[in-house]
Amino acid sequence: VSFAEAAAGLTPLDTAAASEAADLHDRLAKPRGALGRLEATGIRLAAIAGACPPPVPEPVVVAVFAGDHGVLAEGVTPWPQEVTAQMVAAFCAGGAAVNVLARHAGATVVAVDVGVATDLAPAPGLLLRKVRAGTANLATGPAMTVDEARRALDVGAGVAAEQVAAGARGLVTGDMGIGNTTASAALVAAFTGRPAAEVTGRGTGVDDETFHRKVAVVERALRRTATEATDPLGVLASLGGLEIAALAGFIVGGAAARVPVVVDGVIALAAAVAAAALAPGCVDYCLAGHRSTEPGATAALDHLGLDPLLDLGMRLGEGTGACLAVPLVQAAAKVLGEMATLDGAGVTPKG
Amino acid sequence: VSFAEAAAGLTPLDTAAASEAADLHDRLAKPRGALGRLEATGIRLAAIAGACPPPVPEPVVVAVFAGDHGVLAEGVTPWPQEVTAQMVAAFCAGGAAVNVLARHAGATVVAVDVGVATDLAPAPGLLLRKVRAGTANLATGPAMTVDEARRALDVGAGVAAEQVAAGARGLVTGDMGIGNTTASAALVAAFTGRPAAEVTGRGTGVDDETFHRKVAVVERALRRTATEATDPLGVLASLGGLEIAALAGFIVGGAAARVPVVVDGVIALAAAVAAAALAPGCVDYCLAGHRSTEPGATAALDHLGLDPLLDLGMRLGEGTGACLAVPLVQAAAKVLGEMATLDGAGVTPKG
Repeated sequence: VSFAEAAAGLTPLDTAAASEAADLHDRLAKPRGALGRLEATGIRLAAIAGACPPPVPEPVVVAVFAGDHGVLAEGVTPWPQEVTAQMVAAFCAGGAAVNVLARHAGATVVAVDVGVATDLAPAPGLLLRKVRAGTANLATGPAMTVDEARRALDVGAGVAAEQVAAGARGLVTGDMGIGNTTASAALVAAFTGRPAAEVTGRGTGVDDETFHRKVAVVERALRRTATEATDPLGVLASLGGLEIAALAGFIVGGAAARVPVVVDGVIALAAAVAAAALAPGCVDYCLAGHRSTEPGATAALDHLGLDPLLDLGMRLGEGTGACLAVPLVQAAAKVLGEMATLDGAGVTPKG
Repeated sequence: VSFAEAAAGLTPLDTAAASEAADLHDRLAKPRGALGRLEATGIRLAAIAGACPPPVPEPVVVAVFAGDHGVLAEGVTPWPQEVTAQMVAAFCAGGAAVNVLARHAGATVVAVDVGVATDLAPAPGLLLRKVRAGTANLATGPAMTVDEARRALDVGAGVAAEQVAAGARGLVTGDMGIGNTTASAALVAAFTGRPAAEVTGRGTGVDDETFHRKVAVVERALRRTATEATDPLGVLASLGGLEIAALAGFIVGGAAARVPVVVDGVIALAAAVAAAALAPGCVDYCLAGHRSTEPGATAALDHLGLDPLLDLGMRLGEGTGACLAVPLVQAAAKVLGEMATLDGAGVTPKG
C-alpha cells in the first residue's frame, strides 16, 4: 500500500456505532458519565471500528521509525549521531525503554530504518527500509527532496498496512533520531503558524546556549521554507526527518486500515500535523497517548484537537508515552464489552 | 493483625534504596529525567520495598469495602440504599466496572461487607465482616460508636494483612456505599479544615437542590462533631462510614506490610486523611491512582501531598481509578528492573 492509496482509502468515522456506544454507556451499571474520558475513548473506538462494543485493540504493534538529521551540524544537541544506530540496536536487543513499556502492555516492537546515517546489519525485529542515509541540514537547504519525502511516506504507510495484515488491531507510533526535536519544532511551527520560540523545546535536555541556537536554526529554516515550499509535501520535505515523514505515512496507513493509532510525543505529533495537512481524515483515528513536556507537543495537540490520556512529565520519545496509554485504550473497549448493564446486574434504577 | 498492631508496625521508607534507584535511573539508556513521574514512582517503590530495583507490584488485590449510610434519610442522593447490596452482588458476579478494570490490570477483586444494611449471603470473593448494619444518620448524631469505628479499622487492617500473607504485593482501595460521598466530604472537611462547600461534590450526579441539601448536612455534622469529638478516632466515628473506617485500616495495614497501596478517589482519600491522622507514616506507602472530579478528592490529595498518576475525569469509585493506574505503577518498577544501562546498551555517553 502506498501513501497515496492509503490517503485515498480514508473513510469517515462510523457515527452510528459511536451513538450506540454512548447509549450503551448510559445503560451500564454505573452513574451516567462516571467513567469520564474512558467513556469518550470507548465511543471513539466504536466509531473507528464501526462496531459496538468495539473490539479490544490487541495485538498492538509499536513501530519505531529511525532516521538521522543533517541539522546536527548546527550543534543543536550534545548527543552524537551514532546514538541513533546504537539505540536501534537496543530496540532489537529488547533493553530500551520502549521495549520494557511495550512488553508490559503486551505490544510488539518493530524498528524501521528509514534514514539512519550508517548501514545497519539485519536483525530480528528490524525492517530495513532506508530511503536515504540521513537528511541534509535543514538550516541551509531542504532536509530531503520531495521524492524522498514521498518514499518515506510510502514506507510508513506500507509498514502500517503490513502490520494490520499480519493481525495488529492497534498501532503505536515510535521514533528515534538524534536531532529530531529540531525538525519536529520546525514542522509544528510551519503547520500551526506558531513562532519558533513557542514550539521549540529542550529535547533531551540542552543548555541555554544550545537552546537559543536551536530556536535560531528553526527560525532560519522556516524563513527559507516560506520562500521554497509551496504545499504540505514540500514543507515536509524541507523541514522534516525521514522517520517523521514515515510516521506521517504510518498514521495515515493505520487510519486507512481503520485501526486506532496511539500517537506518542512531539516527534509523532509533528508527523501527525503533516499527515493532517496531507490527508485530514486521518486524525479521527488518532488517540494521543501522553502530553510530552516539549512545547511543540502541546501546540500540535491543540492544532489537531487531541487531548492526551496521560500527563506524566515524560520527554523520551521512542513511543514510550503512547505505550503507557495502551492499557487505558484497551480498558475503554473492555468497559463497553464486559460491563453488566444496570438491568442485567439487577441494580435499581436511579430513583 | 489489629489496626493498633499495624499502626505500631509502620516503618520509615528505605532512603538508601530510594537513592540507589535515583542513581540507577541516571545510568539507564535514556536522557536524565526523561521518564518524568515514572521515575519518581520507581524511586518510591524502591523506598517502599527496601530494594533496588524494586519488585514489580504483582499480584495486586483490590479490596472493595462496602457499607451503608444512615445519612440517606436526609435525601442526599437519588440512589436507594438497596444499590449497595446489589453492587456487592455485581462485584461477586464479575460485571461491575471495578471487575472489568481489575481483570484488565491482572488484579483480583475481593468484596468486604463491613457495614451493608441487609444480610448478605456468602458468595465467592465476598468476605463477611459486618461490624454493623449501616451507620446512623451523621446529620443528627455520631455515625457509629468509637468502638465500632475501631472494629471497622481492625477489619481493614486484617484484610490487608491476610491478602499480603496470601501473596499480594500491591493493594488497591475500593469502596461501595450509597451516600458515602457525603460522609467523605464531612471527613475531608474535618481533617483538612476546609469549609463544607469547598469539599462537597455532586457524587453520582445530584441536582442543585440535592447538592445544597448535601452541603447543609455536612455543615450540620461538622458543627455537631466540633463539640462532640475530641480526637481523630472520635471524628472518624462521628462522620465516617463503616467502609471508610475499614479503608483507613486497610491503608495502614498495607503500609505496615510494606506494600504499595494505590488509593482511589474521594472515599479512599477521606479514609487516607483519617489514616494519616491516626498513623501518619502510612501515607508514604500510598500512591494516588486518579484525580476524581469530586472537590473533596483534590482537597485530600493536597492535604496528603499526593499527586495522582491519572486525571481522566472519572467519579465512579469502586477502586476503578486506582485499577487503571496499576499498570503505570508496575511499569515504573519494570523500568528499573528491565532497562539496559547506557553502558550496557553500548550507547555513547552524552558528549
